[in-house]
Amino acid sequence: MSSNALDEDACWALVAGARHGVLATAHAVRGTDAVPVVFGLLAGPRLVVPVDAVKPKRRMRLQRVINIERDPRCVLLVDHYEEDWDRLWWVRIHATARESAVTGDALDALRSRYPRYGAPGAVVTTLVLDPTAVTGWAATGP
Amino acid sequence: MSSNALDEDACWALVAGARHGVLATAHAVRGTDAVPVVFGLLAGPRLVVPVDAVKPKRRMRLQRVINIERDPRCVLLVDHYEEDWDRLWWVRIHATARESAVTGDALDALRSRYPRYGAPGAVVTTLVLDPTAVTGWAATGP
Repeated sequence: MSSNALDEDACWALVAGARHGVLATAHAVRGTDAVPVVFGLLAGPRLVVPVDAVKPKRRMRLQRVINIERDPRCVLLVDHYEEDWDRLWWVRIHATARESAVTGDALDALRSRYPRYGAPGAVVTTLVLDPTAVTGWAATGP
Repeated sequence: MSSNALDEDACWALVAGARHGVLATAHAVRGTDAVPVVFGLLAGPRLVVPVDAVKPKRRMRLQRVINIERDPRCVLLVDHYEEDWDRLWWVRIHATARESAVTGDALDALRSRYPRYGAPGAVVTTLVLDPTAVTGWAATGP
């Protein structure tokens, strides 16, 4: 462990305070895919990524869902950039994901963070991420 | 094409103005990896991602370099988040990557964007990304 590594509690605190991340999945032809996502926190902790009807998509059967079905391994990266590189940090959550119908818990977790998901029908389906490894880094250490 | 799709020129203009991105690579065991990166633009256009001695790392032989050697397919995602979702956008560059010694062009491209790379020895090696597909999306369209 380098002195810049964050422990798991510090990682989850940063993730809870972050507003968005990037979800990378395995893609049969392209090797890997990456999409920006918002997310909520569930007990566990697990993460819920909405497939929504708010941000316009090319199609409702999203590539990320197709990828996950074929290979559930994924990574959620939450990172903080600013011009002062002494303030950089990131948290990386390796996880297995599965598509899940929208549960009450998931909807609560998403609505509490993103008011636009309060609209009826805003969340169409979800990906639930079960973390397998959580690592983090901060330029100035924990 | 949805009306939210950006053409390639619009994508490159956004990438040129962005300060950082997320690089996803294929990983033999984990399926996929993702790391935050900064980057410079080379003729082509191609992209150069530095492996630097500025931001402290756990080891100099970075996992991203190992992954690329095994499978050169990667994705650079540059995304813009803000609370007003009408202002969201992202650009995704699928590419093949290779490790490359630091060339003068690469160093110029990086130093012009990130003054800290002006220090001697700051850039140790680079990944050069050759784009195979560039796509982009903006909430309000082009």
